[in-house]
Amino acid sequence: MKVAVVGASGFTGGELLRLLLLHPDVTEVTAASRSAAGRAWGDVHPGVAALTHARFVELDLARVARGADVVFLSLEHGASSRLARPVLDTTRALVVDLAADFRVRDLELYREHYGEHPDPELVSRFRYALADIEGTALRGCMALAAPGCFATAAALALRPLATIALAQPPVLFAVTGSSGAGTQPKESTHHPRRASNMQAYSVLGHRHEAEIAERWRAWAGPHAGRPRLMTHQGPFVRGISLTLHARGEFRGSGRDLLAPVYDRCRFVRITDEPPALTHAIGTNVALVHAAVAPGEIQIHVAIDNLIKGAAGQAIQAMNLALGLPEDAGLRLAGAFPC
Amino acid sequence: MKVAVVGASGFTGGELLRLLLLHPDVTEVTAASRSAAGRAWGDVHPGVAALTHARFVELDLARVARGADVVFLSLEHGASSRLARPVLDTTRALVVDLAADFRVRDLELYREHYGEHPDPELVSRFRYALADIEGTALRGCMALAAPGCFATAAALALRPLATIALAQPPVLFAVTGSSGAGTQPKESTHHPRRASNMQAYSVLGHRHEAEIAERWRAWAGPHAGRPRLMTHQGPFVRGISLTLHARGEFRGSGRDLLAPVYDRCRFVRITDEPPALTHAIGTNVALVHAAVAPGEIQIHVAIDNLIKGAAGQAIQAMNLALGLPEDAGLRLAGAFPC
Amino acid sequence: MKVAVVGASGFTGGELLRLLLLHPDVTEVTAASRSAAGRAWGDVHPGVAALTHARFVELDLARVARGADVVFLSLEHGASSRLARPVLDTTRALVVDLAADFRVRDLELYREHYGEHPDPELVSRFRYALADIEGTALRGCMALAAPGCFATAAALALRPLATIALAQPPVLFAVTGSSGAGTQPKESTHHPRRASNMQAYSVLGHRHEAEIAERWRAWAGPHAGRPRLMTHQGPFVRGISLTLHARGEFRGSGRDLLAPVYDRCRFVRITDEPPALTHAIGTNVALVHAAVAPGEIQIHVAIDNLIKGAAGQAIQAMNLALGLPEDAGLRLAGAFPC
Amino acid sequence: MKVAVVGASGFTGGELLRLLLLHPDVTEVTAASRSAAGRAWGDVHPGVAALTHARFVELDLARVARGADVVFLSLEHGASSRLARPVLDTTRALVVDLAADFRVRDLELYREHYGEHPDPELVSRFRYALADIEGTALRGCMALAAPGCFATAAALALRPLATIALAQPPVLFAVTGSSGAGTQPKESTHHPRRASNMQAYSVLGHRHEAEIAERWRAWAGPHAGRPRLMTHQGPFVRGISLTLHARGEFRGSGRDLLAPVYDRCRFVRITDEPPALTHAIGTNVALVHAAVAPGEIQIHVAIDNLIKGAAGQAIQAMNLALGLPEDAGLRLAGAFPC
Repeated sequence: MKVAVVGASGFTGGELLRLLLLHPDVTEVTAASRSAAGRAWGDVHPGVAALTHARFVELDLARVARGADVVFLSLEHGASSRLARPVLDTTRALVVDLAADFRVRDLELYREHYGEHPDPELVSRFRYALADIEGTALRGCMALAAPGCFATAAALALRPLATIALAQPPVLFAVTGSSGAGTQPKESTHHPRRASNMQAYSVLGHRHEAEIAERWRAWAGPHAGRPRLMTHQGPFVRGISLTLHARGEFRGSGRDLLAPVYDRCRFVRITDEPPALTHAIGTNVALVHAAVAPGEIQIHVAIDNLIKGAAGQAIQAMNLALGLPEDAGLRLAGAFPC
Repeated sequence: MKVAVVGASGFTGGELLRLLLLHPDVTEVTAASRSAAGRAWGDVHPGVAALTHARFVELDLARVARGADVVFLSLEHGASSRLARPVLDTTRALVVDLAADFRVRDLELYREHYGEHPDPELVSRFRYALADIEGTALRGCMALAAPGCFATAAALALRPLATIALAQPPVLFAVTGSSGAGTQPKESTHHPRRASNMQAYSVLGHRHEAEIAERWRAWAGPHAGRPRLMTHQGPFVRGISLTLHARGEFRGSGRDLLAPVYDRCRFVRITDEPPALTHAIGTNVALVHAAVAPGEIQIHVAIDNLIKGAAGQAIQAMNLALGLPEDAGLRLAGAFPC
Repeated sequence: MKVAVVGASGFTGGELLRLLLLHPDVTEVTAASRSAAGRAWGDVHPGVAALTHARFVELDLARVARGADVVFLSLEHGASSRLARPVLDTTRALVVDLAADFRVRDLELYREHYGEHPDPELVSRFRYALADIEGTALRGCMALAAPGCFATAAALALRPLATIALAQPPVLFAVTGSSGAGTQPKESTHHPRRASNMQAYSVLGHRHEAEIAERWRAWAGPHAGRPRLMTHQGPFVRGISLTLHARGEFRGSGRDLLAPVYDRCRFVRITDEPPALTHAIGTNVALVHAAVAPGEIQIHVAIDNLIKGAAGQAIQAMNLALGLPEDAGLRLAGAFPC
Repeated sequence: MKVAVVGASGFTGGELLRLLLLHPDVTEVTAASRSAAGRAWGDVHPGVAALTHARFVELDLARVARGADVVFLSLEHGASSRLARPVLDTTRALVVDLAADFRVRDLELYREHYGEHPDPELVSRFRYALADIEGTALRGCMALAAPGCFATAAALALRPLATIALAQPPVLFAVTGSSGAGTQPKESTHHPRRASNMQAYSVLGHRHEAEIAERWRAWAGPHAGRPRLMTHQGPFVRGISLTLHARGEFRGSGRDLLAPVYDRCRFVRITDEPPALTHAIGTNVALVHAAVAPGEIQIHVAIDNLIKGAAGQAIQAMNLALGLPEDAGLRLAGAFPC
């Protein structure tokens, strides 16, 4: 199986390459990048230097996609909308997009967070690939929109609540590591400022709220209000730690709440205690915990933002779409401590 | 003015000593400690080594309190209940307790979180010393209970909401640094486990919820429900970052909401953006920010857990009780970056 | 191939289990631990929770070793000396010891750093398994002593200097992460003290100097002086960063110095710049760099202390001893950033 | 006393402002900055927001210097050479330069590291202000060059060795926090890359070696070789940890070696153990420790790079030049833990 990764010089691109190199069904990986063309993968992504001497090729999508069985698009927001159509129209490759372009089907909701969509028709051809929830329903899809990192954690916390009567939509507090901000140095990731710090950001308007709202509506009903996501920057590199709070009645334990939804999920593990973020790092597993009190539910989620929240989930979705074992290439044990 | 710090070998004790050494009205400081008796202060608290060669004395409270104008008790929970009475009964010293013993006046609420109180009568003699809110009302008090670190951040977030009709009690998400866990090494503060980690703890039952609930009832009315505090351990040493979420209507900006309460507070600063935690570190200032949307309010608080959340606020309360300038000894500029 | 790990609850034990679980030639892994017997591996080593539901067995060495093809001993210092003999005498298993017990053949040198050896005869049956240097010479060995973490980094820095005339033995400055201190919380790994800190320790007498001295003598001649190792604790979890300084003349580039020794080593990579420590993390690769000036040589080494410095090198040595491909189970790509 | 800080928006500028605001002899502080003109100090340096509402003025040196008793220049390298002359020629202000421009008197040595000096004559008017060593010799100076941060730590380690016969010049291994890289985000301070990392840099040619070499020559004699400084970036924000290694004979303890030089220094403290870096943070104190073995000496130094290594030492030098108490404005107790 031949796989191309387009826009492969970012942190997510690096994790895609690392995981695809070790995927048992992948025989060839091409990595295309505008900024890194000609450089060795290992120069840009030091982790893979031990495995390959391959070099980045130019970001010529038509050329890269030709002959590929799967094309991952790992580009800045908006670029996929301009580039994806020819691949979809002229090749038989499965396209997995990791940007926000095709995550939101409701164009009004999209507009509210991102502005006018440049190619609305394209949106309808993509399927939102929340792999643990969609599972085998992704089989045969040819265009997948991989969820955002916060959205993945949020959706996994929300899903078990869909059938519970809540007074208000849940609120979700989430903290992300600095790798979520990408490879370009900026003030918010300047080490003297980021180390030992915490800070809320995108208050009352994080873009991932769009896909979260759409998901919640799909599960809890068209009149369900919008969950509120409160995002924070934390002083660590990897991972998202999320705590959900909801007011509603559930008669049973936290595990009773989660088990029906997650017991058969290969990559969701229900924990007995609130999960330590580091226990999820390096794996494609979401750790989920719930605590229940009269009239109140809390759910805790820990994920690796670059694996479960990006590259790992995208590969899991690929596996599901192509009918491969769901965990092919994803039997990752996290190094600990990390 | 002579001041004694009893139980002075912990992190809070160290900060008390550091700040009192530089307090313009304090002429003499005695530090008593069971575990550190005989050792130089600077061996235990390296920060003060540059200022003094003083040594810890034995923890003989009667002796230490004799002749003191102020006695700070910085002991493990429960110890103050056993030790404070003689000081209160036989000396004229102002007593400032930094443990939880005297923070909760409602004994039922206390029992729920801490078990039976060993000396209930004593509780009524203490005043809860949330310094920024109580202000000059503390003048003349002789026994002060310094609030808990989380409780300080939570109370400062809650106070501006007291007069707003809320559908439900607010929920508060808070993250603390490892210094909040004290000087004794333990699994949750073992560096290989704590670094780069985040984890919820004391789920559905953090002890500081007791004093928070009592404060909220005092402000919002006897029938107000209990705010929910969700505490997390973060991978940094100092500080508490707190985000409050409430559903209710406020017509105005975030600053409009906060200004009436905090504009004249010496040690609360309203920020235009959600505060960076590091901007509060090293100071006695609480940074507070609010964001308002239709039907929804978020409040962000950043404090130094050992200063505003402990030693600094206790000294501020002492200043207020004794009629000194509120900021005596507390004109602290935080070193930045830190 | 059946493998037993004895003393499997520490950080090194956890990494051994993680790597052995994914080793293509290993069909069965048994983990024995006194403190963790009965618990699930994943409860103790969260990284492997995604891969197995196996549980620790009692630390009954005779029973554990029976039928095993390989036995890894990952015990506190001294324990292997008491336990290893029966395994060596009564089974045909390859024994790989990860403690210091059998690393030093010169009993005088051993005594100087560790005291009297409890079973000197046993020492001579073990081979020092510095895998990258020994290579195929380990083939057929039945008892291997895996080098210490600092010693691994130090030896890899020293080896290329063996044939150069030096005015004095080299000096080595090394910094280790907190995972090197093990799983038991202690003052030096208490997060409030370790975070943002650096500190020299074991000044003029780190135990790893013994095996380093013996290695250096073997390479540079019996009269070569002892290299000096200066160890420091750093504020990170994983890895050792080492800088060597030597006064001597080498006519050529840094790469010229290193290439003859390391060009054909599967797990040593010569870098063009001083290596970033994080680039080695998660892999079994040692990154090595040299800089040469008139009369002066500097060598920089970065390794993952728990992999190259412990579990990974031990498995590499096992592979070499058993005639397996050197990189079996060790084709690890480091997650980056980490 | 009126003080101006020119180029006050960097980290060093911020620390100068913070310390000068609390200096008992300073009545007025003006802060000039090209990039921050018009902004509140507290917006740029959050630590001082609690103390002042002052704003930055334009970087018009003539105007700023007029009427000032002291002018601190905290500019990028080279700018002081262009700007300092008019201030020196037309005002009676003490000028303290914190850049490298005037640190090296030997123009050949300067050239080697920095290129041609733009105004050599000016160099001779400045005095190298290594405050702890120079002490009262700075009295009356009108132009001071504050040492570099690494150079400060290095010089304090080297000074006690000046009278000892060494086989070779000492080698110094040093690790700096990210604040040393300044306020501009760059790849080496991008949090995902800097966190948990260590890396050698400026190998065989760090610029501070120039001033170190000149100092060493002044102390150890004109034919003394150059000490080698090996600089590393560490994963912390503040501080420099330095370990010196020398081969030479000293008959006595480490304290015997250091005491004659440092016993009467207000801001150097000899420690019994290798100093923890965090124990120096927030203070103007250099912590110094020595260990002696036959033929070998190690010296460990810990300093706060922005205080002892920059702003604090500059103010100490100002105090000495003006005949003020050496510790005026510098009685700083470090907050701990930090």
